[in-house]
Amino acid sequence: MEDGEQREWGAKAWTYLSSVRSLAPLIQCITNFVSMDLTANTLLSAGASPAMLHSPNESPDFTPQVNALYINVGTLSDNWLPAMELAAQLASKLNKPWVLDPVAAGASRFRLKACLDLISLKPTVIRGNASEIIALAKASFASTKGVDSSHDSTDAVEAAKSLANSSGAVVAVSGAVDFVTDGNRIVGARNGVPMMQKITATGCAVTALIAAFVAIDPSHAMEATASALAVFGVAGELGMETARGPASLRTHLIDSLHGLDQTAVISGVKITAI
Amino acid sequence: MEDGEQREWGAKAWTYLSSVRSLAPLIQCITNFVSMDLTANTLLSAGASPAMLHSPNESPDFTPQVNALYINVGTLSDNWLPAMELAAQLASKLNKPWVLDPVAAGASRFRLKACLDLISLKPTVIRGNASEIIALAKASFASTKGVDSSHDSTDAVEAAKSLANSSGAVVAVSGAVDFVTDGNRIVGARNGVPMMQKITATGCAVTALIAAFVAIDPSHAMEATASALAVFGVAGELGMETARGPASLRTHLIDSLHGLDQTAVISGVKITAI
Amino acid sequence: MEDGEQREWGAKAWTYLSSVRSLAPLIQCITNFVSMDLTANTLLSAGASPAMLHSPNESPDFTPQVNALYINVGTLSDNWLPAMELAAQLASKLNKPWVLDPVAAGASRFRLKACLDLISLKPTVIRGNASEIIALAKASFASTKGVDSSHDSTDAVEAAKSLANSSGAVVAVSGAVDFVTDGNRIVGARNGVPMMQKITATGCAVTALIAAFVAIDPSHAMEATASALAVFGVAGELGMETARGPASLRTHLIDSLHGLDQTAVISGVKITAI
Repeated sequence: MEDGEQREWGAKAWTYLSSVRSLAPLIQCITNFVSMDLTANTLLSAGASPAMLHSPNESPDFTPQVNALYINVGTLSDNWLPAMELAAQLASKLNKPWVLDPVAAGASRFRLKACLDLISLKPTVIRGNASEIIALAKASFASTKGVDSSHDSTDAVEAAKSLANSSGAVVAVSGAVDFVTDGNRIVGARNGVPMMQKITATGCAVTALIAAFVAIDPSHAMEATASALAVFGVAGELGMETARGPASLRTHLIDSLHGLDQTAVISGVKITAI
Repeated sequence: MEDGEQREWGAKAWTYLSSVRSLAPLIQCITNFVSMDLTANTLLSAGASPAMLHSPNESPDFTPQVNALYINVGTLSDNWLPAMELAAQLASKLNKPWVLDPVAAGASRFRLKACLDLISLKPTVIRGNASEIIALAKASFASTKGVDSSHDSTDAVEAAKSLANSSGAVVAVSGAVDFVTDGNRIVGARNGVPMMQKITATGCAVTALIAAFVAIDPSHAMEATASALAVFGVAGELGMETARGPASLRTHLIDSLHGLDQTAVISGVKITAI
Repeated sequence: MEDGEQREWGAKAWTYLSSVRSLAPLIQCITNFVSMDLTANTLLSAGASPAMLHSPNESPDFTPQVNALYINVGTLSDNWLPAMELAAQLASKLNKPWVLDPVAAGASRFRLKACLDLISLKPTVIRGNASEIIALAKASFASTKGVDSSHDSTDAVEAAKSLANSSGAVVAVSGAVDFVTDGNRIVGARNGVPMMQKITATGCAVTALIAAFVAIDPSHAMEATASALAVFGVAGELGMETARGPASLRTHLIDSLHGLDQTAVISGVKITAI
């Protein structure tokens, strides 16, 4: 039974990845300085077309051309926030999917408020670690230790459901198991390896991949989100086979993502309803 | 005949690379956030000395010390544009070569105007993909799909000649074949591998390498430009021999660029007059 | 004798690295755009927790939570400088260690003044190359050629002592030999390989590692600094064994730093009093 369900998810994930490869969706990325390189390379290796354009002078012309928008608040500052808000407003108005990565949401009052303001602009998906999702659900400052989670993803499931219900977004919590919820249903994705947390920006990169998958099928954001998380995790598992540490894992992960075939995806994806 | 011409170009390209290694030209880079890492590593592995200083508070002191200036508009914003313009003005006034990468030139009216304003400051070389060069030659917004080209480089040859004539710059169009023109002559460089387009910022990086080659011999910008494009392509071809995907190609490309010897350059460079 | 001293230093360095791994100190990094990726990956692979938060809107909430602050002026601009100054003031006031990397200190009057102003805010450690330390000690513009040193580290020893005495900081000068001084004592670390200079941001990355080591034991900043320099150098030496150029060295260096064991550190560290 569970095997059948997993193969069905594997087939679904493969369909998303194949569609990204054939359609090359254009993804506008307004993301942090640390992650731009890995994010762009992740999207390219998956077959999408990343564009790191952020200026409010450009979004009115550019956002209408894109297939999805990705916003990540990692290296937030008060002169980038209006750019994020404008692009999110445009995406919402144009019915384009947009995905939020609320990095370190609870690290300061300024950051927490910025994330909550962005959430009011109706993201399609929010993906964070447990501490970030708990901070957002409670709207409370200081639930995170920097950018790394101090909570298990299982701790955050109720917070994720609550945030999904209040925001209308699909919410994903990354961890040993990745949980995805629309406030009602929950699925768990069990792919990936612990060493991925020793590579900076893997969380940011997988959120960008979610944007590319959601661009293919915005009306099934939960399925696209779980599929992206699982596919990225499968690439990490394959990469780990020859990695000798976090830097070679990063290289092999991207190589694997580029080379993933149908068999690897269908047999590798581990998603189940909870 | 063509063999003789190619060997002559190979010898020329080797002279440029050797000179970069022995003279270590100082290249001021005002470039986008995505490409800074790869750009700096490309210049270092070729033997040049990159300096990512952009502030208008610094260029009056610093630009006079450099051997060439590289400007790339990738992650353009209204507070970086004046920095680019000031540095370009200084370089022009000081008779220092400067090279422009008009990333996604047609993606917005703001960006198109910024690129045209920079071109009025007399770049020595402009390198873009086909869609970017066509957008600039036509001065038309919306000829590009994000940062990736939706045109072949052959489509852009007339646009490149026209832009070269109107701007006074040498213009290079990257693609399956790279074309370089001064508005009159055209040469084609046929090095590189398709997977290089799956690595973010390879275009930005090779434009920086052009700046380093032009720094060696500003009065022969066309030869320096074609040589840089071919040398970078040869490094990509050698890198591809052991690559398993885009991320390992990136690693091997930089390693190869660092290790290129005379034989590899002279036998590998494929440049011909068109 | 020297063997015994080196083993003692090796044991000390191992203690610092082990403590970083077990305590995962949170390091706030306000650093340049070029180096953010390598800096974050260096800290993660050593076991620390990097956080690239820079906004003055956040530091009042966030800096009190961190174990050390790292400031690097690489891509300085007038809108980042106040952020650096505020975070440095907070760290000093809260008695948290903070470490300064004065990249290209002598490249412009603006940059030199910015570095001197930051030094007046009492950094715990300053690490630079010879040209940077000489520029700071003499408070003189134009002693550097871009970001690369045009002086030997041995030339800078007196400048380093003078800067240590005037600033109260431990001062480290990187080079073929790395020197560390508190103005009175001097130690030399002889680890690392020349090719590390062909990788952008290795200097920035090791300064971040110094911040992580100093976070463990702020009252022995000189020992922590020499240990971090040596440990990073040992990782470079191990990485060099299988490197084929600067890009694969970068990968292997980070992998090696992550995998370093007690034997490798104790037998590899080469620190001696001068």
